[in-house]
Amino acid sequence: MEVSMQNFVFNATTEMNFGRGQIEKLPKILGRYGRNVLMVYGMGSIKRNGIYDKVMSLLDDFNVYELDGVTPNPRIDKVREGVMICRNYHIDVVLAVGGGSTIDCSKAIAGAYYYDGDAWDIVMDNSRITDVLPIVAVLTAAATGSEMNKNAVISNPERHEKIGTSSLKFIPRAAICDPEYTYGVSKFQTAAGTADIMSHVFENYFKSEKGTYIQDRFGEGIIEACLKYCPRAMEDPCDYDARANLMWASSMALNGLIGCGKGSQSWSCHPIEHELSAFYDITHGAGLAIVTPKWMRHILNEKTARRFKKYTRNVFHVQDTGDDYEMAEIGIDKTEQFFKDIGLPSTLSELGIDDSKIQVMAHNAVIHGRLDNAYVPLDDMDVEKILRACL
Amino acid sequence: MEVSMQNFVFNATTEMNFGRGQIEKLPKILGRYGRNVLMVYGMGSIKRNGIYDKVMSLLDDFNVYELDGVTPNPRIDKVREGVMICRNYHIDVVLAVGGGSTIDCSKAIAGAYYYDGDAWDIVMDNSRITDVLPIVAVLTAAATGSEMNKNAVISNPERHEKIGTSSLKFIPRAAICDPEYTYGVSKFQTAAGTADIMSHVFENYFKSEKGTYIQDRFGEGIIEACLKYCPRAMEDPCDYDARANLMWASSMALNGLIGCGKGSQSWSCHPIEHELSAFYDITHGAGLAIVTPKWMRHILNEKTARRFKKYTRNVFHVQDTGDDYEMAEIGIDKTEQFFKDIGLPSTLSELGIDDSKIQVMAHNAVIHGRLDNAYVPLDDMDVEKILRACL
Repeated sequence: MEVSMQNFVFNATTEMNFGRGQIEKLPKILGRYGRNVLMVYGMGSIKRNGIYDKVMSLLDDFNVYELDGVTPNPRIDKVREGVMICRNYHIDVVLAVGGGSTIDCSKAIAGAYYYDGDAWDIVMDNSRITDVLPIVAVLTAAATGSEMNKNAVISNPERHEKIGTSSLKFIPRAAICDPEYTYGVSKFQTAAGTADIMSHVFENYFKSEKGTYIQDRFGEGIIEACLKYCPRAMEDPCDYDARANLMWASSMALNGLIGCGKGSQSWSCHPIEHELSAFYDITHGAGLAIVTPKWMRHILNEKTARRFKKYTRNVFHVQDTGDDYEMAEIGIDKTEQFFKDIGLPSTLSELGIDDSKIQVMAHNAVIHGRLDNAYVPLDDMDVEKILRACL
Repeated sequence: MEVSMQNFVFNATTEMNFGRGQIEKLPKILGRYGRNVLMVYGMGSIKRNGIYDKVMSLLDDFNVYELDGVTPNPRIDKVREGVMICRNYHIDVVLAVGGGSTIDCSKAIAGAYYYDGDAWDIVMDNSRITDVLPIVAVLTAAATGSEMNKNAVISNPERHEKIGTSSLKFIPRAAICDPEYTYGVSKFQTAAGTADIMSHVFENYFKSEKGTYIQDRFGEGIIEACLKYCPRAMEDPCDYDARANLMWASSMALNGLIGCGKGSQSWSCHPIEHELSAFYDITHGAGLAIVTPKWMRHILNEKTARRFKKYTRNVFHVQDTGDDYEMAEIGIDKTEQFFKDIGLPSTLSELGIDDSKIQVMAHNAVIHGRLDNAYVPLDDMDVEKILRACL
């Protein structure tokens, strides 16, 4: 089952401007690309916490056009709206001010701008992404890592589809990461974001390649940072160290670093969760918190137990009992307990989700996520079992 | 003494092409910049192991000019020679094929090309670096991290000076990192390179900033990789996993990642070792192996003991005895023992170095390294004591 470290290309090109007051650099950064800016943002939190006013005050010398109302699980109709603005006003650069949803939406806009057909086409088939407008991100939530990577996940509610697409050209040119900008993130969203960060590590950590020692130590460090700092940020939302470590964890978990040399297999929990979000529009991180421990138990077997044991030992610093299986179960239990401790749901019932869509969700997850190629390959029946365990 | 995480910019832009057979990409990579290539290399090992022939066979469509004979502790006269070739043949891109010395020399050439005065000026004063020719590296030794960073260290034997300079424009555009290309590195050079990698982590790990949790976990992971894989690579030079992890450790230890948010203080051991190399032309990593444990003991005090304890606990997995000082000493002893175990010298006498130059080396280290601003500030007397302890 184990294979050697794969060849890889690591090229995380985003200029990460991290820390208090970095927003002051925004005019200089945007000025590299032009004067016509499309500013994309969400449901108005940046107006309540002053970030909107701050950004606007810095952009006197720019022509700023706005696209607001980007929702969690950002939708293709919002992408289409953004493309129209870009074309009407000859936008030079897309400025995303928000979390992962806003940045993902901005990426799709920036890519669809150069595509003649419908924007949904480039989500379904990234070979249609030929060029992309420059993207700059001002990050206001630690979760998806979109600020430093090539990925975008877009939902199509009419079709009950939530699909990930990617392009190297989607990588933001620069990001402003001020931990203070996340002080206003709610306890629930802080927890959900943390579950997302942790899942990004899991998706790369639980793979068949051996010899990826450094990547695995890095991944464990990110998980440990989540375990340590998420409760602290929930306890005191203005704990700078906690917010800073969660923010940096977000970027480090999914900028390619943890996955270097581990490229051969599909992800597991994300595709399953994407179906939940597509059908029920639930919070991505909450869905992951439910699915992850059940997935871990489902794939635990003689071949995978050693990797889970390593996880248990290195992340939770549990003394080795000598029994791989027992050690694995301790780690899975601790993972599940952590999600409960930070207030995330552990069953679908808590979110009012029943078993009526399980078959179609399982089927779609296997197809969209190419789960036959996952760390432990999953077919429709496997995913159904995992989802039923989540009820 | 402790301060908060500093603001930082992280922008490691090198396209890292890692793994077996990546050399095949070389023509495509170089072709981005032009047809006139200056190929810089060292003392001929690449001719013996076939890398030279392989590179040449791939570059039929290019005009390749050669600068060979770059020595360890690369010298300013070699830089001047390279600049002449670049000007005479309108070089478009500098291709470094070698280890840190070759890449550092290439950086200085690429920067001095655009400077009208003597090349040494840009080493002494990096504000004179205005533009830099594109640099591409084919890495053949794991050590300095130069393949993914902005630094170059150049020696001026006439002046007994070994000086580090840096520019964001020095960062190689792309690197080819094939672990098999390091199979021929001798046991001694493998060990010395490992000591260099470890020192790069130490220089960032032992700093006063608190709250840099992720960076510290990453640093510990790199040190652990060195402890695990250096002996394996010495035992079996063709152990792919061992060579791959050391190579990736090299790049990760000094691409800015471990130092994110820890920018406020000078390095300690590198400036001291640079004086040893400047006066006695010794192998950098060997000098570091001698200086590092003595420096650690010299700066161990009530304020620093806790950080050393953390190092001991997280890297060597020693059960906490409860006594910070005792724990610190265990970690320092283990570090010193590791360097001995991999065959590196632990005293200057072993290299035939006596106390005759200690005063001038100490003085120069304090000035060139701005050691008054180190983690534990060091004056001439401190460095003299450290160097005397090394005798």
